[in-house]
Amino acid sequence: MGRPKSARVTVREIAAAAGVSPATVSRVLTGQTAVSGPTEAAVREAMERLGAPDPGPAAKRTARPGAVFVRCPYLLTDYFGTIVTAVAEALDRHGRELILSAGSSAQHNGALDELPRRRDLAGALLVLPVEDGAALERLRRQDFPFVVIDPRTPVPRDTAAVSASHFTGARNLTAHLVALGHRRIGFINGPDDWLASASRFAGHTAALAEAGVLIPPELVTSIEPTSDWGHTAAGRLLDLPDRPTALVAFNDKAAIGALRAAHDRNLRVPADLSLVGFDDDYLSRTSVPALTTVRQPLEELGGLAVSLLLRLLEGTAVEALHVELATELIVRDSTGPAPHRLSTAPEQMT
Amino acid sequence: MGRPKSARVTVREIAAAAGVSPATVSRVLTGQTAVSGPTEAAVREAMERLGAPDPGPAAKRTARPGAVFVRCPYLLTDYFGTIVTAVAEALDRHGRELILSAGSSAQHNGALDELPRRRDLAGALLVLPVEDGAALERLRRQDFPFVVIDPRTPVPRDTAAVSASHFTGARNLTAHLVALGHRRIGFINGPDDWLASASRFAGHTAALAEAGVLIPPELVTSIEPTSDWGHTAAGRLLDLPDRPTALVAFNDKAAIGALRAAHDRNLRVPADLSLVGFDDDYLSRTSVPALTTVRQPLEELGGLAVSLLLRLLEGTAVEALHVELATELIVRDSTGPAPHRLSTAPEQMT
Repeated sequence: MGRPKSARVTVREIAAAAGVSPATVSRVLTGQTAVSGPTEAAVREAMERLGAPDPGPAAKRTARPGAVFVRCPYLLTDYFGTIVTAVAEALDRHGRELILSAGSSAQHNGALDELPRRRDLAGALLVLPVEDGAALERLRRQDFPFVVIDPRTPVPRDTAAVSASHFTGARNLTAHLVALGHRRIGFINGPDDWLASASRFAGHTAALAEAGVLIPPELVTSIEPTSDWGHTAAGRLLDLPDRPTALVAFNDKAAIGALRAAHDRNLRVPADLSLVGFDDDYLSRTSVPALTTVRQPLEELGGLAVSLLLRLLEGTAVEALHVELATELIVRDSTGPAPHRLSTAPEQMT
Repeated sequence: MGRPKSARVTVREIAAAAGVSPATVSRVLTGQTAVSGPTEAAVREAMERLGAPDPGPAAKRTARPGAVFVRCPYLLTDYFGTIVTAVAEALDRHGRELILSAGSSAQHNGALDELPRRRDLAGALLVLPVEDGAALERLRRQDFPFVVIDPRTPVPRDTAAVSASHFTGARNLTAHLVALGHRRIGFINGPDDWLASASRFAGHTAALAEAGVLIPPELVTSIEPTSDWGHTAAGRLLDLPDRPTALVAFNDKAAIGALRAAHDRNLRVPADLSLVGFDDDYLSRTSVPALTTVRQPLEELGGLAVSLLLRLLEGTAVEALHVELATELIVRDSTGPAPHRLSTAPEQMT
């Protein structure tokens, strides 16, 4: 009707047409604070007629109440699925649309490079991105707002990121084993180039060092964090001439595989072998015995990432760009006192 | 530039401006068949200048290459996460955007009623919708294209739906137990008002009836399909004076709970008790013993639902609106020959 949409209108014109203040129009545009239903409808109707207002160079992104692109290029199992669900719920509470890219086929589809060109997007959340720091840095330089959830590799200093405190979680876990008398502990780590692997190994090392123990190299191995890999790696550690009395696995999936390896060798958990995972996923709660593990705050990670992104979109000052959320040690039935070992055969103790 | 977007242009005008045939413009609009990158860019550029073409009354939806709304109002654990991932990958292959609504907070947010009014959407995929048939019927009457994945309750005849063949899957599973000599089989079903519960119970009943066995009511119970509920329900069945020799659980989660209940009672699986689940999720593959179960074709369900929706959007004839995909019996280590029982105490047989 009348004016072509391509000619830019101002926030002030929209406000006048809708009979509201320019501040109200901004609120509708940014979607940050609540605006009553009828007021919002009036503003949207005015924009429908007149077109979207010119945001001006300074607030280019803020002025677009666009959708949030969520990239989680993996199978949405318990771990990733819980994060994405929390993100979906948080975005819904803020009236933001979630555009999802998921599944391993999304790993190399170049979606990241296209993001800054997309006019429909306000920003993005990138879960465990496959890209390195340089690619993220490139994105940031194009002034496209995004937050990394659970970074795989170190993120640039000025890039927003949320993660669980892997170091503290791993240190507390190993300290729990040390307190039970374990000194010879096998460590089944994640991939070598993952930030989480490095941090957890550092936590493990620190807890043992505090007890005056240095880790012999034959007790450390790196795997893809799946049950089958955990099974193989644990088998190798358990077949060492001087068998470890405890195993720390990178995640619960790997720990479940390690449990099978113990079972294969007629080792009782925890009487002969203590075993711990990481994540507190469904597997750890339902296995026999249930696993001692570290709870990762997955829901909170998702919710916090959304808050952080919305603050970036608003232009609000953000206290810290790199946030680590506390993990929690969950002691269940797979850990017990270190056996007094005279030989490598399983003892008759309970 | 020049013409206001609100005045409708025709497909023919766009085609002329882009220097392509009207059929090519339609292909870009429907996103159904491949169009080369430069050609698509030319068409989109023409639409950007001239506005979207008037689809005409007959092909109102077809003409909009809109996004697909995917609603899965649950925590995206293995089961739902696998379906949503498959949907995401299939939509990505077809160049369709996926707008996600997930998490239990989405169960009652009224999203379904809003769908037909949203101009940005081409259609929707509804995973295990919480709404009943009447609500789906209302949506269909508004001419909004959608496909139901894994319907919770019976869907109206003219509504597109894909599901796994629960009946056949359950019948094959119980037939496997019957072949092993089991006749007294406890059945831990899902919620009474779920289509899947009714179908699986029918399959179970059929397999036993074929062996001349009618099911005593005390051997059937309904639960929420979680590990804890499975644990409780299995405990009740295992404490019956005449204990069943096998348990059929609604899903692998419940079966894992049942495994714990067997463990609590020092019953060996499968020597004293055979135990089966449904889904073939991670739990069933990693438990000790690994579970005999039924593989649900989750990836295929997601992919097929996308194909079906795209055909509806195209206006292509669809052979069948209700599609059931075959399930597969996966025999692992939790099922064995029925014990020869003289008392309710565990026997010493393997």
